[in-house]
Amino acid sequence: MVKPIKIGIVGYGNIGRGVLSAIEKNRELYGDVSVAGILTRRPEQVKKLVSGVEVVDFDKGNDINPDVLILCGGSATDLPVQGPQFVKNFNTVDSFDTHAKLPDYFHEMDKAAKENNNVSVIATGWDPGTFSLERVLADAFIPGVKPYGFYGLSKKGGLSMGHSDAIRRVSGVKDARQYTHAIPEAMESVRKGENPTLQTGDMHWRECIVVAEDGADKDKIANEIKSMPNYFEPYKTTVDFVTQDELNDKYQDLPHDGAVIAVGTNGDGSKSLIEYKNEWESNPASTANILLAHARAAYRLKEEGKSGAFTILDVPAAYFSPKSKEELLKDFM
Amino acid sequence: MVKPIKIGIVGYGNIGRGVLSAIEKNRELYGDVSVAGILTRRPEQVKKLVSGVEVVDFDKGNDINPDVLILCGGSATDLPVQGPQFVKNFNTVDSFDTHAKLPDYFHEMDKAAKENNNVSVIATGWDPGTFSLERVLADAFIPGVKPYGFYGLSKKGGLSMGHSDAIRRVSGVKDARQYTHAIPEAMESVRKGENPTLQTGDMHWRECIVVAEDGADKDKIANEIKSMPNYFEPYKTTVDFVTQDELNDKYQDLPHDGAVIAVGTNGDGSKSLIEYKNEWESNPASTANILLAHARAAYRLKEEGKSGAFTILDVPAAYFSPKSKEELLKDFM
Repeated sequence: MVKPIKIGIVGYGNIGRGVLSAIEKNRELYGDVSVAGILTRRPEQVKKLVSGVEVVDFDKGNDINPDVLILCGGSATDLPVQGPQFVKNFNTVDSFDTHAKLPDYFHEMDKAAKENNNVSVIATGWDPGTFSLERVLADAFIPGVKPYGFYGLSKKGGLSMGHSDAIRRVSGVKDARQYTHAIPEAMESVRKGENPTLQTGDMHWRECIVVAEDGADKDKIANEIKSMPNYFEPYKTTVDFVTQDELNDKYQDLPHDGAVIAVGTNGDGSKSLIEYKNEWESNPASTANILLAHARAAYRLKEEGKSGAFTILDVPAAYFSPKSKEELLKDFM
Repeated sequence: MVKPIKIGIVGYGNIGRGVLSAIEKNRELYGDVSVAGILTRRPEQVKKLVSGVEVVDFDKGNDINPDVLILCGGSATDLPVQGPQFVKNFNTVDSFDTHAKLPDYFHEMDKAAKENNNVSVIATGWDPGTFSLERVLADAFIPGVKPYGFYGLSKKGGLSMGHSDAIRRVSGVKDARQYTHAIPEAMESVRKGENPTLQTGDMHWRECIVVAEDGADKDKIANEIKSMPNYFEPYKTTVDFVTQDELNDKYQDLPHDGAVIAVGTNGDGSKSLIEYKNEWESNPASTANILLAHARAAYRLKEEGKSGAFTILDVPAAYFSPKSKEELLKDFM
């Protein structure tokens, strides 16, 4: 029996809870991971939510002695501070997802990780993450291809936490959920190999389910949402008002799905298509299991003497797997 | 400008021709690969088919001075002999695809490659190859999942070269093509997360298009095909007779497609689905481009001082890509 990899969880929101249950499930199945404990800014509250798990303050990481920390905070304010800080003392995995700032974050983490002889796997989950991997593979396996990403394929669409938060900040809004929907005609054009030039609003539309405060001006709210730059302005956007009870009743799940589609032409003129799709009933639970697989990879990279920052593009697939080399050769190749 | 990787092509059948045109297309797009030459048992014949490319006999590999050789022979008789032989003097990539013998072939190639300080990437293409990779990723990202493989999804189905050859060996058969078809109900059951127990014949059926010799007993041919162990006996099999002209006219393409589908349950009980699909208008042309991407990887592994055998599971995705680290971070993550 191999000694399990001890995973510390930093932050206990949706993703943190998902990571805890992912560790439990993987421990039962494979025995190769265990919970070292939870680091949180509010240990007293979190202690009431979990049992049999060490819960300590943010700066007491050494008390739980983790092999790898999974940072479950957000990219806007948490990770830019926490990433460089935690990697000084620990191997880390995070889901930094601000695409525009990703190269800078990589280099900052790479420097900090190397200086402290630790490993940090950054920017993982599904996008950036598995979708990034599939874009690179499609680009390598179909020469000169243009990979497209679509989100919210199912009827329900995909719940966007960031966009839901943005709506909640509008004056007069009590609560809200935002569902992203892919535009099927755009997907069909891509699948046919037309490699269309698509603007942001050609690929997706946005459905907003809003609870207004009593007496609020609903037209004003709807207009303010629809004209929000970047978030909603470039899209066809619908705004529907419901009661808080309806929202609580019908809009509590956190589903998401998406696809990477790439169609290109070989040297002999023949066409190739690659399409990769995922459907998550619970986005945080599925994302958490991906993060956990990357903690395995971080541990293995460190064990073989590596240090610095890595993305999913830098890690062999075998490093994510709980299976042995011989099992992979025999049962998975 | 980086010095291009010089690729030698061993064998000039369907795959060999595909590799040559893949190198040309990738060279035009990226300039990072070039043709070192073709190694063949029949140099005089092949010289008539190509221009501007060195063509030499099998044992004259040193004359073309390749960085990597792509072995385009078959798994039954070519690769078990050629693989261990060529890796003594060269880095190699091959598409060994006898799943049952794969672990033994890996270890034999690993030993030979290490003894001679070369790199060999074995068993690549799409299955084994990209489908193996997707099985391992799905298994790592959805705990305890059971990945299924389906082949021949489109109406036309997927052309199986091996099964076509098997039919041609039946007495009274002049020519033949065999198309594999996935059974849609089985795929639906898998997509629904039922994780069904499926026998070989539950997942696919086989369509045989046969040209009989003049005066041959068609019923006898059909029976002999349908009762062929392993190849057809476990499947629902149809046999249709056509003229040689019809076969030449309507059944000359080499299309194939397939999907890996995996549905499982997270620690919190929520479901995850991953589905990966490819559609190749020309199976050898698409496979050839995958082999070429692995030649890039073999070269890079050797450059960093590695030796031994590798599969797609052991290689970071960035190694397959013609793009730089910074491009990948900026445009693909």
